[in-house]
Amino acid sequence: MDFDFSPKVKELQERVSAFMDEHIYPNEERFDREVAQGDRWQPTKLIEELKPKAKEAGLWNLFLPESERGAGLTNLEYAPLCEIMGRVSWAPEVFNCSAPDTGNMEVLERYGKPEHKEKWLKPLLNGEIRSAFAMTEPAVASSDATNIEASIKRDGDEYVINGRKWWTSGIGDPRCKILIFMGKTDPSAPRHEQQSMILVPTDTKGITIERMLPVFGYDDAPHGHGEVNFENVRVPASNLLLGEGRGFEIAQGRLGPGRIHHCMRVIGVAERALERMCKRVKSRVAFGKPVAEQTVTLERIAEARASIDQARLLTLKAAYMMDTVGNKEARMEIAMIKVVAPNMALKVIDWAIQAHGAGGVTTDFGLAQAYAHARTLRLADGPDEVHRNQIGRLELRKYN
Amino acid sequence: MDFDFSPKVKELQERVSAFMDEHIYPNEERFDREVAQGDRWQPTKLIEELKPKAKEAGLWNLFLPESERGAGLTNLEYAPLCEIMGRVSWAPEVFNCSAPDTGNMEVLERYGKPEHKEKWLKPLLNGEIRSAFAMTEPAVASSDATNIEASIKRDGDEYVINGRKWWTSGIGDPRCKILIFMGKTDPSAPRHEQQSMILVPTDTKGITIERMLPVFGYDDAPHGHGEVNFENVRVPASNLLLGEGRGFEIAQGRLGPGRIHHCMRVIGVAERALERMCKRVKSRVAFGKPVAEQTVTLERIAEARASIDQARLLTLKAAYMMDTVGNKEARMEIAMIKVVAPNMALKVIDWAIQAHGAGGVTTDFGLAQAYAHARTLRLADGPDEVHRNQIGRLELRKYN
Amino acid sequence: MDFDFSPKVKELQERVSAFMDEHIYPNEERFDREVAQGDRWQPTKLIEELKPKAKEAGLWNLFLPESERGAGLTNLEYAPLCEIMGRVSWAPEVFNCSAPDTGNMEVLERYGKPEHKEKWLKPLLNGEIRSAFAMTEPAVASSDATNIEASIKRDGDEYVINGRKWWTSGIGDPRCKILIFMGKTDPSAPRHEQQSMILVPTDTKGITIERMLPVFGYDDAPHGHGEVNFENVRVPASNLLLGEGRGFEIAQGRLGPGRIHHCMRVIGVAERALERMCKRVKSRVAFGKPVAEQTVTLERIAEARASIDQARLLTLKAAYMMDTVGNKEARMEIAMIKVVAPNMALKVIDWAIQAHGAGGVTTDFGLAQAYAHARTLRLADGPDEVHRNQIGRLELRKYN
Amino acid sequence: MDFDFSPKVKELQERVSAFMDEHIYPNEERFDREVAQGDRWQPTKLIEELKPKAKEAGLWNLFLPESERGAGLTNLEYAPLCEIMGRVSWAPEVFNCSAPDTGNMEVLERYGKPEHKEKWLKPLLNGEIRSAFAMTEPAVASSDATNIEASIKRDGDEYVINGRKWWTSGIGDPRCKILIFMGKTDPSAPRHEQQSMILVPTDTKGITIERMLPVFGYDDAPHGHGEVNFENVRVPASNLLLGEGRGFEIAQGRLGPGRIHHCMRVIGVAERALERMCKRVKSRVAFGKPVAEQTVTLERIAEARASIDQARLLTLKAAYMMDTVGNKEARMEIAMIKVVAPNMALKVIDWAIQAHGAGGVTTDFGLAQAYAHARTLRLADGPDEVHRNQIGRLELRKYN
Repeated sequence: MDFDFSPKVKELQERVSAFMDEHIYPNEERFDREVAQGDRWQPTKLIEELKPKAKEAGLWNLFLPESERGAGLTNLEYAPLCEIMGRVSWAPEVFNCSAPDTGNMEVLERYGKPEHKEKWLKPLLNGEIRSAFAMTEPAVASSDATNIEASIKRDGDEYVINGRKWWTSGIGDPRCKILIFMGKTDPSAPRHEQQSMILVPTDTKGITIERMLPVFGYDDAPHGHGEVNFENVRVPASNLLLGEGRGFEIAQGRLGPGRIHHCMRVIGVAERALERMCKRVKSRVAFGKPVAEQTVTLERIAEARASIDQARLLTLKAAYMMDTVGNKEARMEIAMIKVVAPNMALKVIDWAIQAHGAGGVTTDFGLAQAYAHARTLRLADGPDEVHRNQIGRLELRKYN
Repeated sequence: MDFDFSPKVKELQERVSAFMDEHIYPNEERFDREVAQGDRWQPTKLIEELKPKAKEAGLWNLFLPESERGAGLTNLEYAPLCEIMGRVSWAPEVFNCSAPDTGNMEVLERYGKPEHKEKWLKPLLNGEIRSAFAMTEPAVASSDATNIEASIKRDGDEYVINGRKWWTSGIGDPRCKILIFMGKTDPSAPRHEQQSMILVPTDTKGITIERMLPVFGYDDAPHGHGEVNFENVRVPASNLLLGEGRGFEIAQGRLGPGRIHHCMRVIGVAERALERMCKRVKSRVAFGKPVAEQTVTLERIAEARASIDQARLLTLKAAYMMDTVGNKEARMEIAMIKVVAPNMALKVIDWAIQAHGAGGVTTDFGLAQAYAHARTLRLADGPDEVHRNQIGRLELRKYN
Repeated sequence: MDFDFSPKVKELQERVSAFMDEHIYPNEERFDREVAQGDRWQPTKLIEELKPKAKEAGLWNLFLPESERGAGLTNLEYAPLCEIMGRVSWAPEVFNCSAPDTGNMEVLERYGKPEHKEKWLKPLLNGEIRSAFAMTEPAVASSDATNIEASIKRDGDEYVINGRKWWTSGIGDPRCKILIFMGKTDPSAPRHEQQSMILVPTDTKGITIERMLPVFGYDDAPHGHGEVNFENVRVPASNLLLGEGRGFEIAQGRLGPGRIHHCMRVIGVAERALERMCKRVKSRVAFGKPVAEQTVTLERIAEARASIDQARLLTLKAAYMMDTVGNKEARMEIAMIKVVAPNMALKVIDWAIQAHGAGGVTTDFGLAQAYAHARTLRLADGPDEVHRNQIGRLELRKYN
Repeated sequence: MDFDFSPKVKELQERVSAFMDEHIYPNEERFDREVAQGDRWQPTKLIEELKPKAKEAGLWNLFLPESERGAGLTNLEYAPLCEIMGRVSWAPEVFNCSAPDTGNMEVLERYGKPEHKEKWLKPLLNGEIRSAFAMTEPAVASSDATNIEASIKRDGDEYVINGRKWWTSGIGDPRCKILIFMGKTDPSAPRHEQQSMILVPTDTKGITIERMLPVFGYDDAPHGHGEVNFENVRVPASNLLLGEGRGFEIAQGRLGPGRIHHCMRVIGVAERALERMCKRVKSRVAFGKPVAEQTVTLERIAEARASIDQARLLTLKAAYMMDTVGNKEARMEIAMIKVVAPNMALKVIDWAIQAHGAGGVTTDFGLAQAYAHARTLRLADGPDEVHRNQIGRLELRKYN
């Protein structure tokens, strides 16, 4: 047992931090300005400018473990870097480490056919295109995969896709060329063999973006989250991943890394909120005394620090287990951090908002936006309740 | 002691509810549509259509106690009606009972000169114009009134006003004709005699709306919250309310009713969130069982119901005390509900969001917007921390 | 709606408070000393001395509503008096208002035959004997009445009783002459018609007190809580209350008032803990500053005050509803206060303990004992979880 | 970074667990019986029987790092073993790893003169005698060391000690031969140079045990916690540790390991409570369904598991830092676990109590006693509030 990062990781932490200091933090206002002015749904010039710099700095595709296509980092090595990138919402894309692309690239790497890799994974890894993931449905509690209503039906050499999905993030971006679609190929199969996943190019006929969904008033442009209708969408049968009835299996594989990446990033968000809170309370005086010296303030900072550190350790341990015993054996730890990290972050951000007074709820400090985003993580990839039930069941199983 | 509403109140509750059923709930989508289309900062036709109906129905100016200009209701009688109106964010205006006008009208009624009443109170009571309140400042912790930096300086027959305010709600509305401004006339006076309040017509030279502030991602159009610069703004000396150095006194008087109205409305918001939650969990099935039958769901509903009922009782008691022993004697109860009601509402709304899955964080059920608004109430009119300190001090004083 | 106590109640509050000031608070140490010295399981002389004084002062049997045998107070009138008595754990007995006697007397009054009243109710009302209640069982989750395993079988003119009960409070007291026993007369009857209640004199053959149960480390002598074995205990058939299969019905009737009395008393306990906390923090200095001036302290006092006031209002409302619409219609409110009041008290007492430092966990301030007792109330008469489920179901029923 | 225990630690974990299985768990009832029968304040035969077995098994003095007198384990290596021992309250003594002896032995090892080591440390390490620590005072908030009122005055070749201490744990045990006393040698010195520590044999004239303090009704016999009066107690001047004015320094050194041991043990307590909870809910049925299948139960188990795992990781990290950068550099982590671990344990134990129904608050499952003990840890060695303030200040210092 060793709680120090390896020299390799420390060196990478320094390089990512230096990149953030040089290229990301100084450009936060420019990013907001670019989105505010002009067409919200066009990629920013800023990110396109910065991507080559990150690539050049060797900080590119850090996320992909166990593959020669990635940077050769384990989950445990990637975690602390992901946290640093997560401190600014749009920074991960600069390093080609942003959701949902990382998860999608993992799927293509693990389950894609050679032609899928050539056609989609390669440009994704190069940062030339982006991708989307279409799983959640508005009409049902789709955290229970058996509820999924979308259908994928074989018809000759093709599959015909029908259904309505929402929270298909990134679909609003014109660079988004491919999406992974989850639907049922056989509703009468056993519970976890009904679902399949299939690759759908976004320009296929029959796909309609009904609307872009706001999150607490934010449209999250230019990325955004779409409600998307699929009506008789036809794709080649070879687009099916892994085989009929294996969608649930792929989802499990995909969501492990996806969940842990979300947690790493949201820990970065919490760290930044705490940093802002500390700076704020040192600069404000109320009722004759700096806010920083009030014990209520000190207690919140202490609780924030202890909560962040605990969540980070648990996340790192989950990453360590994914590396050493595999995603399946690590499922309890993954479920735990999926619950712990967003709830922790919400608590910390809420305190930071309160410390900023009315400034906290508006755009000036990024806190309200951070809160809104963290709030979605208690629902995305399965609500807290589903994960807690799973953890509880796994714990009880020890006593069978 | 009697926990039943009087027959008069019950009858009014029924009439307000009936009006909501007939005119408000069925128009919620239309209101959103009107704001989304066209100029966001123009008043909606909808509200202008409904105001005469409310007036005709005798449901107009219900808020103003102890005045022949109002409907003759006490705070205790008004409270349950205010709660019902609060269930829809824009409904109170239809009844001419919306913030910040109600608080401003109370100020004009209690502290205005006859010419102020004629010129500003009358059209406000008629719903012909609207008003704003400029107290909070971006540069300081202005919940401590001694921190206020805005200045009101006598110059001959005029006062000259300088300063920067924000969260001046309603300033974006072209009907907003008058604002009440808080600033210091004498920074060297004793702590609570430095501040004064003065009436400022919104078309006076030197007033600049720097920007409309988003709350989370919502601009709250067409009402909105402005950051406003006042540069050498000159108004007649007679516009000063009550006298130099009495601004803090007026603020205390104004904020009592203002706070309790906010609490009443946010209890209505919580009730509606609980209603939505109950309906939702009855309609969804996950893992083979209606969500409504899971004990986690039942616990949350139970806690929500108990929390709402307790907050309502405390709010009604505060209103009762305002009526019977006065706002000053009721200050502990007012401070308590100011803390209790928004925090309770946030808890309930958060559970309701969770029960709606990813739908909860978007616009479809109004929950994310309700959350954002309730979150501001933990800061508006003094953050929780300031009120808790006051309550704590008042409690400790019992043992002197 | 009116939040003031009636003149009659105010006058009684003053009289009970005066009695507490004169006879109870000054004797707290004496009570502890009497129990500590001599036989712990003998009644104290103190209480026997004070009972005639309370009777003489007209502060006797205040609890029994709707009966000419009581003091003629409604539940709403009794509630604030019960709270005052509850401030000292042994005080209620002085006023003949202590559990479980009050609940048992209510049962005898409502459901007893004339001979039961003559033989048991009369001496109970006179404070000559005490009583016990035998419902909870160690072997099953007996909050679900269908789980109850104790049997009451008809055999000629007698019923034969078998079973093991625990938490039979007061059974250790030699004055305890009668107990009410809950068991099944017909395990095959519909769910809520299997149970019956029967009167059992404590000197009947076959009753064995196995042990007195400690609560945390307190034996609660000389009252105490027994684990009691009933083996072929025979009582006359006429001892059955109301009729076979009506035990659940009686339990519902009995537990309503019993629960509300517990809540009233525990609110008194919370008030006293807050009082102790306020006095303590004013007297202690840490790190150069009175503990009373730290904002953490002020926040806790504020939260305690707001929580107590809300719980009291909800309890009073429940009492009001019991008086006006009956115990059955008031069941949601009763269930709510049953959950709210003990949890609130635990929070307040815990803060008070913390404010007392290491002194808080020992006997010196009565706080640890108060905590232990309040903790039992989250289980006694049904655990929180059962009540929350009931509240949740009642709330959901509104949307059928 | 590595989250696996070393082979050496794993092997020791297995051996300690095996010893617990063979000698500790099967004797829990016997321990209680021995204490209940006979003289409560005599050591149990059981522990004296088991100590040689532990010594023989090589599981002895595992706690003492950086010393050839101990077992040669680092804090990080000892932590997981300490957790296992902590699962039974009296088990650590069997391994000669119990408080306050471990802390006192560390003091003697680090700061004792050779003759102190010969006379006191040697028999302590052999388990022949026990020791006590006298720091906390009833009259002041002694977590602020400057408040300490006890005096240590030089008089020729002796020091004269006066003062009243309480929570001097273990003083009731006749084997307790030596205590470490904290008092002021110079009240006029700078804040942290007023205090000194001195060795006081318990049979010195002038020491009176005023009473043994109950904790939530438990006397914790035969160990117990004394309130002790020191009146003109004279010891040789050479008994002073390290030098006048260095008591605060020693306290800081002593409390680091002491705090972390408490945290390790209380994590063991929490694990055991969760284990009991899981077994209980699997065995009980309420309202037609095993309690284990209710989502409320599953949520609590999940939260318990995630909270325990996080607290353990933070504690292990603190231990790691003590080993690698020293107790002083690890003070923030030590302060964090001092707050986190007991609060976490209380939450988990409280849920376990609730899951056991009324059985949870009595002696049958050890849960109420575990709760009472864990509750003291929020006060012992400094209350939560003091630690949180320290953490807050250290965090804010990053932004100076």
